[in-house]
Amino acid sequence: MKNQTNLNHHISQNEKVPFTNNAAFCIGTGRMNLALRHEYHKQLEKVQTEIGFKYIRGHGLFHDDMAIYQTYMEDGIEKEEYNFTYVDMVFDDYLSLNLKPFIELGFMPEKMASSGQTVFWWKGNVTPPADYDKWTRLVCATINHWIDRYGLEEVKSWPFEVWNEPNLNAFWKNADIDEYFKLYDVTARAVKSCHPHLRVGGPAICGVDDERWMRSFLMYCRENKAPLDFVTRHAYGTEMPENDGHYVYQKLRKPEEFMLEPLGSREIIDSFPEYKGMEMHITEFNTSYSPLNPVHDTNQNAAYIARLLCELGESSASYSYWTFGDVFEEAGVAFTPFSGCFGLLANGMIPKPTYFTYLFYKDLYETAVAKNDHFIITKNEHGDFRGIAWNLVLEENSEAASLSVKLSFEAEKGTYFILKKTVDQNHGNPLKDWLNMGSPSNPSKEQTALLRECAKPLITTAQSKVNDDILNFEFGLDANAVCFFEIKKITPQCDRGFNPKRIAGAI
Amino acid sequence: MKNQTNLNHHISQNEKVPFTNNAAFCIGTGRMNLALRHEYHKQLEKVQTEIGFKYIRGHGLFHDDMAIYQTYMEDGIEKEEYNFTYVDMVFDDYLSLNLKPFIELGFMPEKMASSGQTVFWWKGNVTPPADYDKWTRLVCATINHWIDRYGLEEVKSWPFEVWNEPNLNAFWKNADIDEYFKLYDVTARAVKSCHPHLRVGGPAICGVDDERWMRSFLMYCRENKAPLDFVTRHAYGTEMPENDGHYVYQKLRKPEEFMLEPLGSREIIDSFPEYKGMEMHITEFNTSYSPLNPVHDTNQNAAYIARLLCELGESSASYSYWTFGDVFEEAGVAFTPFSGCFGLLANGMIPKPTYFTYLFYKDLYETAVAKNDHFIITKNEHGDFRGIAWNLVLEENSEAASLSVKLSFEAEKGTYFILKKTVDQNHGNPLKDWLNMGSPSNPSKEQTALLRECAKPLITTAQSKVNDDILNFEFGLDANAVCFFEIKKITPQCDRGFNPKRIAGAI
Amino acid sequence: MKNQTNLNHHISQNEKVPFTNNAAFCIGTGRMNLALRHEYHKQLEKVQTEIGFKYIRGHGLFHDDMAIYQTYMEDGIEKEEYNFTYVDMVFDDYLSLNLKPFIELGFMPEKMASSGQTVFWWKGNVTPPADYDKWTRLVCATINHWIDRYGLEEVKSWPFEVWNEPNLNAFWKNADIDEYFKLYDVTARAVKSCHPHLRVGGPAICGVDDERWMRSFLMYCRENKAPLDFVTRHAYGTEMPENDGHYVYQKLRKPEEFMLEPLGSREIIDSFPEYKGMEMHITEFNTSYSPLNPVHDTNQNAAYIARLLCELGESSASYSYWTFGDVFEEAGVAFTPFSGCFGLLANGMIPKPTYFTYLFYKDLYETAVAKNDHFIITKNEHGDFRGIAWNLVLEENSEAASLSVKLSFEAEKGTYFILKKTVDQNHGNPLKDWLNMGSPSNPSKEQTALLRECAKPLITTAQSKVNDDILNFEFGLDANAVCFFEIKKITPQCDRGFNPKRIAGAI
Amino acid sequence: MKNQTNLNHHISQNEKVPFTNNAAFCIGTGRMNLALRHEYHKQLEKVQTEIGFKYIRGHGLFHDDMAIYQTYMEDGIEKEEYNFTYVDMVFDDYLSLNLKPFIELGFMPEKMASSGQTVFWWKGNVTPPADYDKWTRLVCATINHWIDRYGLEEVKSWPFEVWNEPNLNAFWKNADIDEYFKLYDVTARAVKSCHPHLRVGGPAICGVDDERWMRSFLMYCRENKAPLDFVTRHAYGTEMPENDGHYVYQKLRKPEEFMLEPLGSREIIDSFPEYKGMEMHITEFNTSYSPLNPVHDTNQNAAYIARLLCELGESSASYSYWTFGDVFEEAGVAFTPFSGCFGLLANGMIPKPTYFTYLFYKDLYETAVAKNDHFIITKNEHGDFRGIAWNLVLEENSEAASLSVKLSFEAEKGTYFILKKTVDQNHGNPLKDWLNMGSPSNPSKEQTALLRECAKPLITTAQSKVNDDILNFEFGLDANAVCFFEIKKITPQCDRGFNPKRIAGAI
Repeated sequence: MKNQTNLNHHISQNEKVPFTNNAAFCIGTGRMNLALRHEYHKQLEKVQTEIGFKYIRGHGLFHDDMAIYQTYMEDGIEKEEYNFTYVDMVFDDYLSLNLKPFIELGFMPEKMASSGQTVFWWKGNVTPPADYDKWTRLVCATINHWIDRYGLEEVKSWPFEVWNEPNLNAFWKNADIDEYFKLYDVTARAVKSCHPHLRVGGPAICGVDDERWMRSFLMYCRENKAPLDFVTRHAYGTEMPENDGHYVYQKLRKPEEFMLEPLGSREIIDSFPEYKGMEMHITEFNTSYSPLNPVHDTNQNAAYIARLLCELGESSASYSYWTFGDVFEEAGVAFTPFSGCFGLLANGMIPKPTYFTYLFYKDLYETAVAKNDHFIITKNEHGDFRGIAWNLVLEENSEAASLSVKLSFEAEKGTYFILKKTVDQNHGNPLKDWLNMGSPSNPSKEQTALLRECAKPLITTAQSKVNDDILNFEFGLDANAVCFFEIKKITPQCDRGFNPKRIAGAI
Repeated sequence: MKNQTNLNHHISQNEKVPFTNNAAFCIGTGRMNLALRHEYHKQLEKVQTEIGFKYIRGHGLFHDDMAIYQTYMEDGIEKEEYNFTYVDMVFDDYLSLNLKPFIELGFMPEKMASSGQTVFWWKGNVTPPADYDKWTRLVCATINHWIDRYGLEEVKSWPFEVWNEPNLNAFWKNADIDEYFKLYDVTARAVKSCHPHLRVGGPAICGVDDERWMRSFLMYCRENKAPLDFVTRHAYGTEMPENDGHYVYQKLRKPEEFMLEPLGSREIIDSFPEYKGMEMHITEFNTSYSPLNPVHDTNQNAAYIARLLCELGESSASYSYWTFGDVFEEAGVAFTPFSGCFGLLANGMIPKPTYFTYLFYKDLYETAVAKNDHFIITKNEHGDFRGIAWNLVLEENSEAASLSVKLSFEAEKGTYFILKKTVDQNHGNPLKDWLNMGSPSNPSKEQTALLRECAKPLITTAQSKVNDDILNFEFGLDANAVCFFEIKKITPQCDRGFNPKRIAGAI
Repeated sequence: MKNQTNLNHHISQNEKVPFTNNAAFCIGTGRMNLALRHEYHKQLEKVQTEIGFKYIRGHGLFHDDMAIYQTYMEDGIEKEEYNFTYVDMVFDDYLSLNLKPFIELGFMPEKMASSGQTVFWWKGNVTPPADYDKWTRLVCATINHWIDRYGLEEVKSWPFEVWNEPNLNAFWKNADIDEYFKLYDVTARAVKSCHPHLRVGGPAICGVDDERWMRSFLMYCRENKAPLDFVTRHAYGTEMPENDGHYVYQKLRKPEEFMLEPLGSREIIDSFPEYKGMEMHITEFNTSYSPLNPVHDTNQNAAYIARLLCELGESSASYSYWTFGDVFEEAGVAFTPFSGCFGLLANGMIPKPTYFTYLFYKDLYETAVAKNDHFIITKNEHGDFRGIAWNLVLEENSEAASLSVKLSFEAEKGTYFILKKTVDQNHGNPLKDWLNMGSPSNPSKEQTALLRECAKPLITTAQSKVNDDILNFEFGLDANAVCFFEIKKITPQCDRGFNPKRIAGAI
Repeated sequence: MKNQTNLNHHISQNEKVPFTNNAAFCIGTGRMNLALRHEYHKQLEKVQTEIGFKYIRGHGLFHDDMAIYQTYMEDGIEKEEYNFTYVDMVFDDYLSLNLKPFIELGFMPEKMASSGQTVFWWKGNVTPPADYDKWTRLVCATINHWIDRYGLEEVKSWPFEVWNEPNLNAFWKNADIDEYFKLYDVTARAVKSCHPHLRVGGPAICGVDDERWMRSFLMYCRENKAPLDFVTRHAYGTEMPENDGHYVYQKLRKPEEFMLEPLGSREIIDSFPEYKGMEMHITEFNTSYSPLNPVHDTNQNAAYIARLLCELGESSASYSYWTFGDVFEEAGVAFTPFSGCFGLLANGMIPKPTYFTYLFYKDLYETAVAKNDHFIITKNEHGDFRGIAWNLVLEENSEAASLSVKLSFEAEKGTYFILKKTVDQNHGNPLKDWLNMGSPSNPSKEQTALLRECAKPLITTAQSKVNDDILNFEFGLDANAVCFFEIKKITPQCDRGFNPKRIAGAI
């Protein structure tokens, strides 16, 4: 039998709790070349229409499949030339979708690389430049091209981040900290040489040996007067992976543990008088860092992210969910549409549960009146409430506990419309429907259409009358359910002669 | 406390029951001029994309707002000319949406009418022609224009029906039976004069004094050798109206009573040796004949229509639901989006419950294996089943009875995917959500979008293993619920390493 | 043999000539109910995408087919109610197309009218209200509904004009000037009673007895302190009509004569110290005021309007071309797509020549450097030029004179891109192509598609090098040709190895 | 001064000349992975909407970026698995666009290859399989997957071609003829093992040592009873390349020389009694075989292809223009939109002149009544004519010769509509307009939009009266112009009162 937890809370109109909603500031993406794909465009268009992120960040700007850096021989001398055909197509598309690039400067063009070490199925070169002058010219030529094409004012709004996760050998040869500082210094100065108001930051580290890296990086910048406009890092919520076939399984850390990383970095930054209060961008985050972990496709992921989003804005200017969609090739090409990849959307335009977490956060009001481990509640100037509640359950294989929520809202006399949208194991969970279908590797058009149809929250509405300044709102949440609710004062109208009591199913 | 009825049934693969699914043969529409509207086009496009009717029938072809019949004076003589601008726009649009017109020849152009009696807010003239030669020329000119524009082969596939409900004074002055026979005779011969293979029929009566009309009409045709290719009538399921403000309330007749009308006409037709087995088209049907009866917007209507659709095909070549959408002006302009109008869709592109009844019928297989007052079950050549079940409850204001259905399907050993889509009081019932919103007369864009989001069936999926030739499928239906289900044998796949047991919410 | 006129002109960078481009401020439309049509929506969407007007004005807000004003009997007393279903659909659509309504308050609901006099095929009632209190309540209810729905800030940006052409008996019974002043006074005060910042104006007269009307109106307002925020009038450029069948033929007045009307009204307004400099809106203008005059479909019309647009902004805050499209029913339903109706677009989404006049004006820069009877030339801050030239020929049946234009632009040394788009008898003149087709009344889908394909300007490009501060640009214009040109300094690029001399047809 | 050639011809209704129009049978494409791109999809959608090819053929099905062939280690043993995710996305898209794949079986997955030799920027492996059993399993697994997904009937309509241009070392290591025959034999039998009705062919050779290859291939098949359902080859019209920077320049061979290759192969095939009359598919053709030759972007190319298309159908069942669009990476990523690539469309959705050659051929009637080096004329059952004329000029840098065409058509008395669409140096030649713009490498959105606007044929219409059985039609063609014309008998209508003589610019 299921366990049940009870949660009671009174919400008053005038309470205020800290909450900064940066959920839609930035979103992650597969490598830049994938932005040329049709399915990618369609997914991003849907995401932008319905959620509307402001920035997008991904790898591979200087990877050879973007073809920017080119050389040729003339009179026995190697000459350089730059090809902006593809990057223009990508950025034109981003801008047309109301997205700005959060630029990651990397990886290394093969012809400029100091050695052959690569990362991912798509073989990004992760070695320092053989010649830093070539690198500088590449960075400057690229930025100047953007200034020509999009105007200085536009480019000034694009943050420039130097490289990705240099504290891992996988992404930066030998995780060589001094070499990274050199790269950072050279690159930051190159950016500023294009225009001093362009904004640059690093060190883009993940949570491995991160305290030492963060502290050393800031010391380096301070001592060398390296330009620094913001600090970046990543954060993931999983422990050691266990492999099985195409997949990876990992235990999720508790959200409280997850939060230690951004909070720790915040503390380090603030310990430097020069950098105290400086913007920190979490340029990647998610539960698992593996594109093969099925957790990404689950409603547990939706609940976990819902829990994080209510808190991350206090320390961080942004936290970029890694990634918006499943057009992604770091671990090769997925065999099935539910392959454990990072996306908010599965291929075939199928929203995963976490997609709805983002939809729900987009719809919150600005002012928070209550917040805890299970919900966040906001209000607007009319006294309407919007909130999100979740029931994150991390224990595997246990009898899942359901949560019973009883909220009492301070509300003036009148009539209220109550809206609730719920995503849980049985609603908005296409992974489960796909399993019921027999988990087809290559679903037919009809199966994919049905999965899209299934991938919707359960919506319920109600009307409530308040006579005594209290509106009671009770609901249950199954394990890993996430729900959005709105409580809105209304003035009911009634058309002449319209009598709901005489109409079947109306009340 | 609710009453519950239990229903048990065993379905074998090889049973066959009579069932002819003509649900999508024809659909009704508001008057032809409304087909020029933008909201009309969008609604019809949605209906055609998702349901796909073959024919469409409505009033007002010769009404003055279509501007076909024109006269002018030249040298002191009145001359006639015809303007096909609007009718071409309408028919071009229909054909582009894969719809053919089921032509209703009427009403009377004012300049040709014998008197000024009109029907509806839009004032359709319902009097005989002052000059039958003018009428004949009008009919012929119009049909010949269509043959020129669309080709004879196309026009041969359009049925021509003479007038609408002449057995009511409202639609035909004095309900003058002899005058109608004259009109029919003249018109049918005019049609045939354009091409002998064009198909013509009548008498398009409703259920008032219908036996006498039907019998007299057939006798007239026989005796006068009036051309007759098919017979038409209407059928509605409500009793006397009670008015209140903008609305009309009526008691629904039992479906068995409803069926007496088509079956009675069938019997009369078959009693004429010359006409035995002749196609009968029910060119209008619905619960209520009033566009002001809120029943049309309810899930009770969906259940009632579901009940009728399983049976009507046995007597009738078609039965045209009156109407596809709420762009309609017979009783004036509706004050609210849930105004009791006939449409499958409410204005604002909001599907009503009955819309889903049609979606469900569209997805049935051809061969029926079981059918009764509560369900129809079909199968395909692979042994997959698709069915529709409903729980029609007609008693007003009583404690609604729920229905518990237990079906056992003859099924070979293996794994099955089970899909269920349910429309009931709480799902796919936007009328209720609109009431909860405060029944706004003019919902905002956001409210309308939310209503569309609410107007979806609840979808559930499951997987079932059969070891012993029987698949048991049980479910409950609340009052006036309608559900669609599919039971399909599958061969589950499992990607290498994919382990649902390790994935939260997957099983 | 053709006559040819030569025109030489030197354009210097620093010359400035007066030019206010209000061409896209407002556009006319068929009556409001037609805004519910599908073809209307498509045409307006095209117009807004490509030209982008700010306001739209038409008749029929209170006409019965909009169904706003309703009455019913209760307890033997007539009660009023208002139905905003249709007007909301129309205004929602306008706003979604980035258009605001320029409200015309009229005509009279039948149930409120003092008598039965109507105008147009669609029978707009043009009589004073039988009861001015009813009218006041209607105006206020409607405006307050808009404030509720769209917000006060939005509605404050909508001008309110009282009635249409009251100086004609056709539009205002007996052209009763005192009755109009009463209507104006009551209505203006009603508008202001909704909010004092709402803006109201009149007298919406056309060019018949207009001086007396204008002067008397302003005197009335002054003496009675009737609210007045702007003045409105109409202006058309044709003389007496001659009828033939469905058509009307008229002589065009010279543009100079046309200009006398707005300039005369401007002078009258400015002669009142209280009203000096007050905004004047020409809420309708065109060549002919008849929707049956084929001139509207011609390239002569395009040249005539091009001529007017270069000058009207000096006296008038707006001048609303009557109308954007041919969904229009004042004179009934057109028998053919080139029926002499007002639209920039013919039905079937076919641009007429005047459509391009508007496209061309939209693309002008703000600052004018040269302007005369044959062209207007503007420049931007980079020294690029854009201009429009036309060759208006009014003489009928004469040997059309062609115009040879030689412009010399002051231009710094460098390379220039020259773009020219021409609409003349043989290009962008679908009327002529339709005549060549045999003037089919009801063109097929293929014929309509071909007409759209034909309805494009001839585009030519060139490159020019300037060595001596002068760029010479010569071109010819056939009778009634209109052309747009751009002269833009460029920095040619040349991809490595790309050699136009080796490429056929490249240079 | 220009030279002018005169061409006079009389066309009679009853003459018949041989002409088989297979222009739209098949079209070429960049490698399969590029079919996942957004720009690719948009271009292909346009091509299919406007031209409508039946088949599409390109390289790279088994290239590693399609990820079909995968291996992994289990218990120390290498195991194989197949990933159809991407190929399903591509073929689903093709089928949704009414295209069927003309399958080319190649190149070699790296893990299956016998050595590392690759072709193109994208590094297609062109070596034989290290293990022919692995290859056979790959071919069979892939085909069987398609049969599962799309049904046997569908797959039976897909031709299977074995490899690409094995007679070049670039495409097949050492151009090893015996190894190819082995590959062919193994592959053809693998195809047939999936189903005997699947159709297979080769040898897919280009014009190098082609006679020996063709003859030997047919002898091999005959002797070894290798399945063979059709023969394939390629044909290009250029001579030796000269390189300059990113570009390649070549002399065009005369069309008569070009034709020798298909005719020669036809003759060889027909010389084998077993294969006489067998279908020959030219699975690639174009002027130049280099994606760096600017000729592809010229109107000369359009004229050259027009010339070939009138003749190729006599020897060949298809001739697949290489390629539909410029999403293409064989020589890397283009620096500019006019990079000499093969496409009918340049990137940015800009039609090149040859696009119109295909549009024109699509619109021809089936029956040809006249054909020569300069035109092809067809007629339908009503006696309407449609033709294409061209003026191919191959001499570089010479004074281009214009062509004066005088056609006299046998035509019955009556009125005719004459339509002409012309593409020449000044119309439908966006390359020239782009050069005039300064040949920007990365045109802005506005520049690209203008190029699309320029890329249209000049359309002219006329009306002609025939009194004496002859319709004379004269027109001039500049160097490398291509024009389409239609001559159609019409019955002019004239709306009552419509008088073109009173309408400016109408006649």
